[in-house]
Amino acid sequence: MDIATGVGLLAGIATVVSLIMIDGGNFGAYFDKHAVIVVFGGAMAATMVRFPFSVILHGLPMGLRYAFNSRSIHPGDLIGELGRIAELVRKSGPMALENVQVDDTFLAQGLRYLADGYDREFIKDTMERDRDIFLMHLEEGSNVYRAFGDCAPAWGMIGTIIGMVTMFANMSDPSKLGPAMATALLATLYGALIANMVCLPLADKLHIKLEEEDISRSLIIDGILLIRESKSPSLVKEMLVSYLPEHSRAELIEAA
Amino acid sequence: MDIATGVGLLAGIATVVSLIMIDGGNFGAYFDKHAVIVVFGGAMAATMVRFPFSVILHGLPMGLRYAFNSRSIHPGDLIGELGRIAELVRKSGPMALENVQVDDTFLAQGLRYLADGYDREFIKDTMERDRDIFLMHLEEGSNVYRAFGDCAPAWGMIGTIIGMVTMFANMSDPSKLGPAMATALLATLYGALIANMVCLPLADKLHIKLEEEDISRSLIIDGILLIRESKSPSLVKEMLVSYLPEHSRAELIEAA
Amino acid sequence: MDIATGVGLLAGIATVVSLIMIDGGNFGAYFDKHAVIVVFGGAMAATMVRFPFSVILHGLPMGLRYAFNSRSIHPGDLIGELGRIAELVRKSGPMALENVQVDDTFLAQGLRYLADGYDREFIKDTMERDRDIFLMHLEEGSNVYRAFGDCAPAWGMIGTIIGMVTMFANMSDPSKLGPAMATALLATLYGALIANMVCLPLADKLHIKLEEEDISRSLIIDGILLIRESKSPSLVKEMLVSYLPEHSRAELIEAA
Amino acid sequence: MDIATGVGLLAGIATVVSLIMIDGGNFGAYFDKHAVIVVFGGAMAATMVRFPFSVILHGLPMGLRYAFNSRSIHPGDLIGELGRIAELVRKSGPMALENVQVDDTFLAQGLRYLADGYDREFIKDTMERDRDIFLMHLEEGSNVYRAFGDCAPAWGMIGTIIGMVTMFANMSDPSKLGPAMATALLATLYGALIANMVCLPLADKLHIKLEEEDISRSLIIDGILLIRESKSPSLVKEMLVSYLPEHSRAELIEAA
Amino acid sequence: MDIATGVGLLAGIATVVSLIMIDGGNFGAYFDKHAVIVVFGGAMAATMVRFPFSVILHGLPMGLRYAFNSRSIHPGDLIGELGRIAELVRKSGPMALENVQVDDTFLAQGLRYLADGYDREFIKDTMERDRDIFLMHLEEGSNVYRAFGDCAPAWGMIGTIIGMVTMFANMSDPSKLGPAMATALLATLYGALIANMVCLPLADKLHIKLEEEDISRSLIIDGILLIRESKSPSLVKEMLVSYLPEHSRAELIEAA
Repeated sequence: MDIATGVGLLAGIATVVSLIMIDGGNFGAYFDKHAVIVVFGGAMAATMVRFPFSVILHGLPMGLRYAFNSRSIHPGDLIGELGRIAELVRKSGPMALENVQVDDTFLAQGLRYLADGYDREFIKDTMERDRDIFLMHLEEGSNVYRAFGDCAPAWGMIGTIIGMVTMFANMSDPSKLGPAMATALLATLYGALIANMVCLPLADKLHIKLEEEDISRSLIIDGILLIRESKSPSLVKEMLVSYLPEHSRAELIEAA
Repeated sequence: MDIATGVGLLAGIATVVSLIMIDGGNFGAYFDKHAVIVVFGGAMAATMVRFPFSVILHGLPMGLRYAFNSRSIHPGDLIGELGRIAELVRKSGPMALENVQVDDTFLAQGLRYLADGYDREFIKDTMERDRDIFLMHLEEGSNVYRAFGDCAPAWGMIGTIIGMVTMFANMSDPSKLGPAMATALLATLYGALIANMVCLPLADKLHIKLEEEDISRSLIIDGILLIRESKSPSLVKEMLVSYLPEHSRAELIEAA
Repeated sequence: MDIATGVGLLAGIATVVSLIMIDGGNFGAYFDKHAVIVVFGGAMAATMVRFPFSVILHGLPMGLRYAFNSRSIHPGDLIGELGRIAELVRKSGPMALENVQVDDTFLAQGLRYLADGYDREFIKDTMERDRDIFLMHLEEGSNVYRAFGDCAPAWGMIGTIIGMVTMFANMSDPSKLGPAMATALLATLYGALIANMVCLPLADKLHIKLEEEDISRSLIIDGILLIRESKSPSLVKEMLVSYLPEHSRAELIEAA
Repeated sequence: MDIATGVGLLAGIATVVSLIMIDGGNFGAYFDKHAVIVVFGGAMAATMVRFPFSVILHGLPMGLRYAFNSRSIHPGDLIGELGRIAELVRKSGPMALENVQVDDTFLAQGLRYLADGYDREFIKDTMERDRDIFLMHLEEGSNVYRAFGDCAPAWGMIGTIIGMVTMFANMSDPSKLGPAMATALLATLYGALIANMVCLPLADKLHIKLEEEDISRSLIIDGILLIRESKSPSLVKEMLVSYLPEHSRAELIEAA
Repeated sequence: MDIATGVGLLAGIATVVSLIMIDGGNFGAYFDKHAVIVVFGGAMAATMVRFPFSVILHGLPMGLRYAFNSRSIHPGDLIGELGRIAELVRKSGPMALENVQVDDTFLAQGLRYLADGYDREFIKDTMERDRDIFLMHLEEGSNVYRAFGDCAPAWGMIGTIIGMVTMFANMSDPSKLGPAMATALLATLYGALIANMVCLPLADKLHIKLEEEDISRSLIIDGILLIRESKSPSLVKEMLVSYLPEHSRAELIEAA
């Protein structure tokens, strides 16, 4: 669980709700079906013109799922775990891997290949392909949320202008001017909230996750291949640390 | 057919139409010939100053056509088809190609060159030139739609300011103020809709298509040349996969 | 003549004029000397602070001239013409060049050098220097128009604010409020029109011209040098095509 | 102490306070709990969605601390100090270092390693890792302040729109319109002040500090390693100057 | 003297003054101490948080001085002058340099080194360091003006919002609404004028000066070193021209 995403979204909602509560708690005044239709419908329509269907269908749910999840295992712990597995394989052979339980599904997949005795090329190609497909979908998710967040404020403005056109065109009764203006402004409000509270922060978070996953999965692949060649646990650890960019290496060692 | 483009545009129109319907369905209030003239006329004028005529005449219709079409054949299927053709040529010689029917016109052109026995250099040069001309026109299309979408909101604002100047200059009758303001705002509305619903998303989609076509057509050229040298079907498939960037390779294999 | 630039500017003016005509044709209401002074004076003042005088004096008129002109000869025809000249020189010697009439002044200059028997180094250095000076001035022109177009809207806003300050400060007579607001808005209108109708599109067009001229003049220089070495016409054509970037090559061959 | 940061922040507050004082000193009119909640709550919520918790917890306090601190020692003085230490070590051996007192904690750490006789690899790896962790946290601090400053104005606008919706919805009493509008505008004011007075300038300052610390700490590491090899003081100084980029070298010599 | 900077600034002031004159010449209505305090105080405060004091103290006056000065000697004339000096040194030896009078202080410094017979390394190092310190301060000046110009409009908006909050909060007397609004708008006006008339154009001009000074001073250093080796005047000229980038070479020759 990446708690920050959930806490942040809840805090954003709490911020808006508490504001309305202080103003009297008339939540109905802040809901308008026009505004919902124009902001969600419009931004969704533009996103469909912008991307092929396959990208949207992959990107939206995957993005949501990954924004809330964090890696169950930290890269620093991952190197430690790979070191322990290397020691086990050296002592008891690859057969012993069948009883090893790991949390990370990608690592589990690699261990299964080791236990089944696949050759180096197959393991490397299959796991790198899986990593690339995964990262590609994660990037598509980030792109879709960013595109959605980029056009939501414009559609909010479109909704407000449509509301103002209606309001000005029927300006015979001045007493209706205020409520009409209030309603028209809601579309701009929705567009700004969707962009600044949800979509753009989610797209940024997914981009950070993508970089983390790239490091973790590359590290797992390299570790599995080193273990397959029966390298010593200390060598496995040392090489995995040096595989990573210097910036992350520092982070790993600090965390370890 | 790229359904997403059409569905997206229809959804965008449906969004606006349903908003107006909810507000009473007075569609006439949302149409203004001033706004049409200033947004379309102005953005078209600026686009003409910006690009040579040849670019606009190529770019606009080609962009529209390609935004709605998708490749009839997926790169993954394309590799499969090229593999089958390689097998056919190995068994029955290039003459057998005369009876092969393929959907993709660029592939069909390559097969005709193979059947007619043209030499390697001619096929490579002619097909690469055709691919480059095609991609250049597709890029021009993307650029024209982006330039149009970038200046449409500015022309919408120009239209609204002209309307407001007229309105303020003749402010003797306050009862006309509302309708005049409503009309003035329509230009801003049209500019925002053209940019955010049509032009900018289309330009983005065309950019994605351009990258897809570049991969597919480069793959077809390489495949045709490999078949000409009577390579084995499995070698053709293997080499075509490795020709592609790693990112797309994953996508191909997933799709296959 | 680059017809698109002129047609585009006329279309832009026609758009604005027809809007005013529909609104009653009171052109006087859309002219204000305050707005002319603040937008032109301000943007010109900022441009003078921004660039040295020499750049402005070269850039403005040259940019205007080149935005309306197109190359009299297309690169494809240029290669054909250079081929014909190469044939003439092979048959009748460089003396025959004295009677050759060409439209392009840069090509004519090169032919004069050939006829006068200057050596390779002199021709190369002189023509490349002339090309570079020309391109530098064209780029300065593009930069000046872009800088002017970038600050015109800001000066339009400054003019509108000055007008609004005057209006609000003398708000004793409410009947004057409307006309004063109308006048104040004209500065914003002028700034937006100058930027979006004239300056920014011209700067973009000049940038495209610069790339075209770079290709054409480099091609002429290379052609002149090849002819000086009495290469065969077919070799001249072949080498000139291959000198160009692949993208342009396709364009040339298509045009030929 | 980096006095400029503190003086600048105080000057910013003084600017706002003096403005309110001139207007009558009614500070209560410029405070609104709605505005505080929406700008701080919203920007904090978006920052939590955007970054993992660890980054925020490290970045915010560290950024604040470093924006107010400057290096106790200037790179020019640092080279002088390292020269003196080199002379001491040459004369009296590394044991003499135990009595050396230096202000810079990173330099002090290096001297302790020298005195304790650690080997070159250990000193280099440990100190570079410490430098990288430090710079990474400083960069996270800069990123967090920038993200906060980027979204604060948007949340200010959200607060103002919510206030305006409330105001327009309850427009029955026109006498309350003014105060309600004043309150609504406060959110925009807070957002603009937080971004332009605090967050964005702090992020820029932290970026400058990061570059300074990178140079200083790299210089200390290189100096410690040179002293460990008992290089002559003049060689230490000369090599340290040449290690730095040319731009900084000039600055160092000027300062010396 | 760079006349364009002064003429441009005067033209900008004349534009604003003539606008006010046409509107009745009530200059007092366009001055407001609130606006002066918030725009200058705020932008200065943010600039102090953004940069260390040393950068601001160097950058502001140096930027102002250099924006108004131009090189007393054009690079083309500089090469000519260096050629004449080279001839003098060949005929009469370096001692003759003691009587040579040159306008450029950087060139004069180099000639003094030549006359005093310093060695190549010393001259090269000292003069390059002086050039680098000079360019660094000039760049700091450009950065400070750009940062000031970037935040001035935001502080103008802050001033206007504070004024509007005061105005709306005390809306009991509607007759004061107009003048209060006029005063509030002045802050936005000041911010826009400072950014678009002074700071951003000055920053752009300083950037052009920096590139010119880099070329001129590098050219002087190279010329001095060539003269020290008693190269022939024609060789000095030829080599100096070829040292420069091709773009500038064309400019030099044109100017010569």
